Amino acid sequence: MDNVESKNNLKIIIDDSSNLSLNQIRNLLNKMSASEIAHALESSPPKQRGLLFSLLKTEEEGDVLFELGEEIQQDLLSNISNEELTEAVKELELDEIVDILQNLPEERMKKILSNMSMVDRDRIEMGLTFPDDTAGGLLNTDVISVRPDNSINEVISYLRDQKELPENTDKIFVVNHENEYLGELSIGKIITSDPSMIVREIMETEFFPLDAGLNDKEVATIFERNDLISSCVIDENGKLIGRITIDDVVDVIREDADQNLLGMAGVAEDTFAPPGRAAKSRVFWLSMNLITAFIAASTINLFQDVIDKIVYLAVLMPIVASMGGVAATQTLTIILRGLTLEQINTSNIGWLFKRELAVSILNGIVLSILVGFITYAWFQDLTIAILISCALVINLISSVFAGIVVPLMLRKLKQDPAIGGSVVVTTVTDVIGFLSFLGLATIYLI
Amino acid sequence: MDNVESKNNLKIIIDDSSNLSLNQIRNLLNKMSASEIAHALESSPPKQRGLLFSLLKTEEEGDVLFELGEEIQQDLLSNISNEELTEAVKELELDEIVDILQNLPEERMKKILSNMSMVDRDRIEMGLTFPDDTAGGLLNTDVISVRPDNSINEVISYLRDQKELPENTDKIFVVNHENEYLGELSIGKIITSDPSMIVREIMETEFFPLDAGLNDKEVATIFERNDLISSCVIDENGKLIGRITIDDVVDVIREDADQNLLGMAGVAEDTFAPPGRAAKSRVFWLSMNLITAFIAASTINLFQDVIDKIVYLAVLMPIVASMGGVAATQTLTIILRGLTLEQINTSNIGWLFKRELAVSILNGIVLSILVGFITYAWFQDLTIAILISCALVINLISSVFAGIVVPLMLRKLKQDPAIGGSVVVTTVTDVIGFLSFLGLATIYLI
Repeated sequence: MDNVESKNNLKIIIDDSSNLSLNQIRNLLNKMSASEIAHALESSPPKQRGLLFSLLKTEEEGDVLFELGEEIQQDLLSNISNEELTEAVKELELDEIVDILQNLPEERMKKILSNMSMVDRDRIEMGLTFPDDTAGGLLNTDVISVRPDNSINEVISYLRDQKELPENTDKIFVVNHENEYLGELSIGKIITSDPSMIVREIMETEFFPLDAGLNDKEVATIFERNDLISSCVIDENGKLIGRITIDDVVDVIREDADQNLLGMAGVAEDTFAPPGRAAKSRVFWLSMNLITAFIAASTINLFQDVIDKIVYLAVLMPIVASMGGVAATQTLTIILRGLTLEQINTSNIGWLFKRELAVSILNGIVLSILVGFITYAWFQDLTIAILISCALVINLISSVFAGIVVPLMLRKLKQDPAIGGSVVVTTVTDVIGFLSFLGLATIYLI
Repeated sequence: MDNVESKNNLKIIIDDSSNLSLNQIRNLLNKMSASEIAHALESSPPKQRGLLFSLLKTEEEGDVLFELGEEIQQDLLSNISNEELTEAVKELELDEIVDILQNLPEERMKKILSNMSMVDRDRIEMGLTFPDDTAGGLLNTDVISVRPDNSINEVISYLRDQKELPENTDKIFVVNHENEYLGELSIGKIITSDPSMIVREIMETEFFPLDAGLNDKEVATIFERNDLISSCVIDENGKLIGRITIDDVVDVIREDADQNLLGMAGVAEDTFAPPGRAAKSRVFWLSMNLITAFIAASTINLFQDVIDKIVYLAVLMPIVASMGGVAATQTLTIILRGLTLEQINTSNIGWLFKRELAVSILNGIVLSILVGFITYAWFQDLTIAILISCALVINLISSVFAGIVVPLMLRKLKQDPAIGGSVVVTTVTDVIGFLSFLGLATIYLI
């Protein structure tokens, strides 16, 4: 389909579908690909989303469901009958069916499986044994495999018999009669080789098959580092059980990035989640922040006397706290990025720590001079100006400890260091900010 | 190479290379792929990084340089001679050479180009005409094209003559004698088709070639939506000028996600940047925050009298501000994600706004009751407890405006809404937080 036309259809569906008749919408949907329809659904509020989905043909519903995020997928799944769902997923690839069925309640999943043919059921049940976030959870069984003693001529006529190769087939795999992985053969190699050659002579053996239990983020790293299009997956006995293709790996990369971004702010919801669900997804970290805000407040409470005597301490104290919060979030972000990209380890964390310390001292000097000047210009009080400068340096230095220690500790505790890390980190800088500024003021001003 | 062994080599290089002799390190590097070496370099402090790079063979330096982030690439480029660099990039693909040369000062780039053969120079100069962040900046010229009247047999023997296909070749392109794009033909289709067929009969024409000027993020979206491995690129006259492959698109996706995460915190640097550079990358948003913190402080300054009378207002006021800041960051994150994924537009922003308002009222009710109770338990003052609850609801509602309006405004002004958005947003909630709490206190307590 033409790129521009397709883009226009998508835009009309997302922007203006409310002005169109159901038939007009149906026509537009017919011209769009499954992932474009999924994007349109993800860009729609729940009510409009339900309407758009109901206009799809049953055979298209499966592809669209697979492309959707988990949350929206579940919403839509709860609105269609078992018969319709069985029909909708019939033509999908294994990893796609598994992805959808995994989101169903146990009971419902069993019912749908019982409607399927024996062969399909066995294959899907095998797929369902792997956790969602492993190589096994991403695998497809549409592999083509040949024997090492086949000639290229035989391979070509075998492929020709298939009429059509599975999508994203850049290579086929070589196995022995026990179905154990021996090597692989790229389609390009097959086409450019002398047809009288034997598979064994030209197959690649320096690639490594993926283990079914491998974490999906590691799968993504391996694909990226080796620029792979597809890779085969083996079970614990070295037997070929399927393959993973780059399109599914790209989804893993996107989701991972999404979780990092959302996790930092303590949200976890789709963009157009209904209000109740969105409120629920956010209230946890808001409540955490409430607790930590009261901890910071009780720090201030220790210094009621000095604030009572010099009221503009109360005016200035949030500055020290806020600067520390921003600096700590900066350090935290760099550490989180380094952890995500697996760049940080015991040998270089020391260097990083010293670097962050140097950064906070460098910026601390510049900013504390600035703060001191502005404060003096405002209140004409040299002591207070010096005190706030010192407190700022102290808080920027403590921001380094918070920004580095908190994510590393969360990781040690097997928690995702991205989630809510900034709430914990800013508590530390709030408390130290108030403590250092009001503490110094107590010592030097009363 | 074996997966586990390769992983161990990488780990040793990153963790312990300082304990090894230069020869031992060289041996480990020899066993690693270019992207693994790049990862090791990115995981090393600058000094160790320079050492590791100096141990590479010249013919490997080009591949490694391409895999590195822009900042590290530039550092290393400034340390090698023009002759070495010319040698190092000689074997690279066009988009890789262009990526590296683009980072050189004009003068140096010209010198290196003048050392190259005429053919290479023309090709590279063509590549250099496209901005870095467009389809043209990602393209390779290693395309295979055939004519529509060729038979499949002719195509196969032409491919066989190539000895080896370019990496990630899943399809070849069909052009007329003017080199204008007509369609494409997947390698799978070639191998499964009857060799006597004619290209025109089986070529696909429903795909669309990419325009060289297309933004790289849009290229990534098109690849994702259509599960592409490669796609051809045409110039403004419809002539085939090259192709883009999925491995380069994955890099675009990663970088995009990285910038979103870092931008939120106002940092822009590689993980192991030297202290001076890291300090410089962060000081801008720290200074911005300094200005906004003083704006918040001057809000408090308006209420010196009431704080002077009731000192624990100063204790409680940061709670209101801090809760608003977290809520606003949550809204901001959801909006940013929606903008990045192109889910938000004029037709649904209204719904989103109402949803966010509902969320803030729902969470506002729950949290303000909590805050009221804790405050009452702490200070035994019912009026203050009620006032802080009301101020919190006001600030949570204003956090919705800040979290939605700020990113949309930044985008209108053609600024990246992710960068520093949280500093601006929390200023609004700080000011409104102090204003509402201290303002209400002034009205009802004096």
